[in-house]
Amino acid sequence: MSLPLLEQLIEAFRVLPGVGQKTAQRMAYHVLERAREGGQRLSEVLAEAIEKIGHCVQCRDFSETEVCPVCASASRERQMLCVIESPADRLAIEHATSYRGVYYVLQGRLSPLDGIGPRELGLDKLEARLAQGEVTELIIATNSTVEGEATAHYLAQLARRNKVRPSRLAQGLPLGGELEYVDRGTLSHAFGSRSEISE
Amino acid sequence: MSLPLLEQLIEAFRVLPGVGQKTAQRMAYHVLERAREGGQRLSEVLAEAIEKIGHCVQCRDFSETEVCPVCASASRERQMLCVIESPADRLAIEHATSYRGVYYVLQGRLSPLDGIGPRELGLDKLEARLAQGEVTELIIATNSTVEGEATAHYLAQLARRNKVRPSRLAQGLPLGGELEYVDRGTLSHAFGSRSEISE
Repeated sequence: MSLPLLEQLIEAFRVLPGVGQKTAQRMAYHVLERAREGGQRLSEVLAEAIEKIGHCVQCRDFSETEVCPVCASASRERQMLCVIESPADRLAIEHATSYRGVYYVLQGRLSPLDGIGPRELGLDKLEARLAQGEVTELIIATNSTVEGEATAHYLAQLARRNKVRPSRLAQGLPLGGELEYVDRGTLSHAFGSRSEISE
Repeated sequence: MSLPLLEQLIEAFRVLPGVGQKTAQRMAYHVLERAREGGQRLSEVLAEAIEKIGHCVQCRDFSETEVCPVCASASRERQMLCVIESPADRLAIEHATSYRGVYYVLQGRLSPLDGIGPRELGLDKLEARLAQGEVTELIIATNSTVEGEATAHYLAQLARRNKVRPSRLAQGLPLGGELEYVDRGTLSHAFGSRSEISE
């Protein structure tokens, strides 16, 4: 009744995040109807990326080479180390800021219930790096979630133990945000952490 | 600064419908972080599907074989022919109804402004088939859009010209729909096409 191969393709698309049965179906039909060339290319690049992209041995970010271009770059300041949860965060920071230091990608966050502890996030390797003394500031840029905050707390202790100054991204009202629509937690924090306006 | 291969992968994902830069990024990271096996499989099935899936010579639906399983099936009634716009419509009808006839897939709808006329939809082949006399009812199941209606009108004329009875899916309130939330066009049509309640 149905095409086994077409059904297989629909099933295969469901591996993508946020893609259910309906969307997978739409994707399969779209590729077959209108984008065979693009689909061919996706198939090839996907196979190549999965085969070749591993992790940088220094920062744990995705990398085709043993050491990623950022870690290998001579123009990056190695005293500043920014800890992030995922590679996507690095992209966001690079696009938004002029940060010239290096990164350390946890590839997750502390979540004891899911069996994710300091070892799984490579924090032993991070501590060894901090102990070397090259890093002077550890910029903790984990997410503002409960788990992200717990991870940040742990990282701050780790930094202090190794005589490295920990810092955390500022929290408060988003730029352009209207008080009326800001969530209570953020507003309460922003109110409590108000700063004096200098003349 | 960035991984060429990773950027290529993100770009390649954008071929999928409804996938912009952000979603493509999330898909690429998700596959690399958590679903390498599924990604590998997607790559393989996608290449195989693009290579092997063509169109059924009888109904124009997607098919791995020259004649698709539905058209080749001996248990299908060949006097009823249901005309649909896309292969996804066949799936929807098969799931929802107990229709045992065969299909004809337009792979589009009449849209003169986009250069899509009767030829592009294979209506010459459809007419030849109706002329053979095997088909007695042409069930027109194009979408309830302006273009779908125009296509339905054209198909009905085609059917009558060849002494085939054309029919159209019923239009009105969706089951479980509340009057208050039904769009004006549908409500107006349903009101006008009200039917008498038999005792």
